[in-house]
Amino acid sequence: MSKKQLKLGAFFSLPGQHFASWRFPTTQPERSLDLDYFIELAKIAERGKFDTIFFADGFGQELEENSPSGIKLDPIIIQSALAAVTKNIGLVATVTTSYNEPFQLARKFIGIDHLSKGRAAWNVVTSNSAKEAPLFGRDKHLAHAERYERAGEFVDVVKKLWQSIDKEALVIDKESGKYLDLTKVHPVNHEGKWFKVKGTLDAPTSPQGHPVVVQAGSSEAGKELAARTADVVFTAWQTLEEAQAFYRDLKGRLAKYGRNPEDLKIMPGVFITVAKTEEEAIAKRNELNSYILPEVGLKYLSFFYGADLTGYDVEGPLPEHYDVEDETNPNIRANIVRDIAKRNNIKTIRELYEFIGGGRGHREIVGTPEQIADQLQEWFENDAADGFNVLPPTFPDGLNDIVDLVIPELQRRGIFRTEYEGTTLRENLGLKIPTSSEQNLTVKQ
Amino acid sequence: MSKKQLKLGAFFSLPGQHFASWRFPTTQPERSLDLDYFIELAKIAERGKFDTIFFADGFGQELEENSPSGIKLDPIIIQSALAAVTKNIGLVATVTTSYNEPFQLARKFIGIDHLSKGRAAWNVVTSNSAKEAPLFGRDKHLAHAERYERAGEFVDVVKKLWQSIDKEALVIDKESGKYLDLTKVHPVNHEGKWFKVKGTLDAPTSPQGHPVVVQAGSSEAGKELAARTADVVFTAWQTLEEAQAFYRDLKGRLAKYGRNPEDLKIMPGVFITVAKTEEEAIAKRNELNSYILPEVGLKYLSFFYGADLTGYDVEGPLPEHYDVEDETNPNIRANIVRDIAKRNNIKTIRELYEFIGGGRGHREIVGTPEQIADQLQEWFENDAADGFNVLPPTFPDGLNDIVDLVIPELQRRGIFRTEYEGTTLRENLGLKIPTSSEQNLTVKQ
Repeated sequence: MSKKQLKLGAFFSLPGQHFASWRFPTTQPERSLDLDYFIELAKIAERGKFDTIFFADGFGQELEENSPSGIKLDPIIIQSALAAVTKNIGLVATVTTSYNEPFQLARKFIGIDHLSKGRAAWNVVTSNSAKEAPLFGRDKHLAHAERYERAGEFVDVVKKLWQSIDKEALVIDKESGKYLDLTKVHPVNHEGKWFKVKGTLDAPTSPQGHPVVVQAGSSEAGKELAARTADVVFTAWQTLEEAQAFYRDLKGRLAKYGRNPEDLKIMPGVFITVAKTEEEAIAKRNELNSYILPEVGLKYLSFFYGADLTGYDVEGPLPEHYDVEDETNPNIRANIVRDIAKRNNIKTIRELYEFIGGGRGHREIVGTPEQIADQLQEWFENDAADGFNVLPPTFPDGLNDIVDLVIPELQRRGIFRTEYEGTTLRENLGLKIPTSSEQNLTVKQ
Repeated sequence: MSKKQLKLGAFFSLPGQHFASWRFPTTQPERSLDLDYFIELAKIAERGKFDTIFFADGFGQELEENSPSGIKLDPIIIQSALAAVTKNIGLVATVTTSYNEPFQLARKFIGIDHLSKGRAAWNVVTSNSAKEAPLFGRDKHLAHAERYERAGEFVDVVKKLWQSIDKEALVIDKESGKYLDLTKVHPVNHEGKWFKVKGTLDAPTSPQGHPVVVQAGSSEAGKELAARTADVVFTAWQTLEEAQAFYRDLKGRLAKYGRNPEDLKIMPGVFITVAKTEEEAIAKRNELNSYILPEVGLKYLSFFYGADLTGYDVEGPLPEHYDVEDETNPNIRANIVRDIAKRNNIKTIRELYEFIGGGRGHREIVGTPEQIADQLQEWFENDAADGFNVLPPTFPDGLNDIVDLVIPELQRRGIFRTEYEGTTLRENLGLKIPTSSEQNLTVKQ
């Protein structure tokens, strides 16, 4: 293949990215705790030659009478299980840096990386939900700047631990009785503001060096953290121009950390509703909206819009007011949603929650396989994206539609693989295997 | 089946319980990070109808040139993966209460319990290795009493979280749009000496109510913790009389917590070397000893004996001195090993490390299937054990030998299952499903 290849992640927001998807006739919300369900879906994504299965996370969410969003399993556990029943696809699990210890996290991800033979990825996030802190004995979450400072140091420590035993250290010579070459062990001796960690991990570097690091921050602190430490960035942009500006900005930050533009893959999210005809696709998209209960729509929009809309008339106009941003929580999502309303000339509350009810802030494309491929290709070939995190509206149907209709069209155009390039996630993403010396460049002591 | 049935765990101390097992010709120490290896071994244990696969844990161990003991993967990750490829066997993972958060641990185990459809178990331990503390920013580990106090509160919080959402809370009615019955949600509001946790888990109770709780403490604090909170106790005794005394003692402590003797299964460890003839079994056991390098034997014995033996003549006598116990570390293991030396009239250092090199403090039986079954049956029928944690000398051969020779003999005697009783671990162990009301009895606010 000579043409540049795009990368695709499958975002597993089960039972679907659309927030009323659980009421859609063919989704299976009753299987949200069922391993066979995860396995079936993972195999669909692997059939589509996706680079990754991506699980978001967040806990301490309010349990809601009308929504499945508060019920879920730890992505680490799901991805470990999927490692045993998949062959090629990358396994991205989101884990917060705010309520974990670097050693425990490093150990779990290197474990998945070994068991999957080099297919693990960690999506690094910070916790900003008010409900998470009380689960860990705290009254409130850390301020934005502190969270990112902690996250940066956390990633540094994790990477050091991941590289604390070279895989060549394992000699394992039964004859002489020599098991380990201690000269290839590099104990971590980290003393920072947030963490003090001395010792080594108990597993050597994995087949892909260490797990892939994914991030999603779009704030200034988030972009710096990504430029310094991430292999993949998951982001949300509505227009080509915005996405290009972000792409240029972030790629431009790499050089100062001794990195090249191709060392970081930028993959915006895209919510795709596809069908053989445009009419059919639009009908499917509209049907999803018909399942949004008004009180649920108001609740979601309150969250996304940054204003309490409880009791508002859904047919009424959008309110002018919204919550003032504070330093613990720059409301990037609310800015995106308010821009969406303006740009699309949206007048009523119902119109807005129906509009964002699918992508939840991500770009949305509805149409035929050709229309969707055109739009993906435009971004891909105009320095707006190295690939996409695809958000299917429903599972399994929405994912199957993408695999059966969109993927073949991308393959026909020669911009997406027909077979996996390698056995590790880094090979498939076109990322090089990190070495200890590179670590010294990107991770400062 | 009318006869009382014994319970059997397979202790996965890979590549074998004997500490030179990695040098034995048929072991596969080079596969210690390989999922296919774990799967093959798990399937052997499941073929043998074992109740559980048991993974010990401990990190921050000294990496040793001549031993694989410092290299391993997180048991949580291994057991999650095995959940996807096994059907009936229970999955016991050891996790310390000293360097974890109850919420994170509760969430991981409930995840494995859901994915495995009710086969998860948590072996509760405390950390007493001097090398663990520096991995978590601490200079030294907690004193014994504090560790157990923390462990007790930790288990309480975890159990509350595991039962914070009844499985009946999941209504999932697409038609009406009602997903959750909030009256069946029981937020935790815990404020204790060690933890402050407010909120709920994000998964409901699992098919077996919640994961099985395993413990191994034999100290006074350990026994009280087990009596109050454990479903299974893993323990180490050399003689019938000692085991009977422990069994009587621990079962006798249950009533004050509102529990019945059958609510707690006591399963001593037993190191088994079996062959069709006694001579063959003894030869196999001796062959294992031939792989112990003297410097490794000295090192291990130093640890078990509680005295630094570096530089001692292995053919020389056992030293009189040993480390004084301190309150951070009552040296129960050293007492057992010194008793073994006395009871068996062991004179030299080599004799002792060869003697304990297999069971590492656990009871050892070498012989024919009949001889082994006789000894297991004696303990089982004389109130010394409800079953056993079987420690195979090597993997896969040692485990295969037990499955092919010992299990059929136990089945012939009618004291071990020929088919699993149920699909959950609690059904197989004969434990009832915990309910919220029982939780109130055993877990005091």
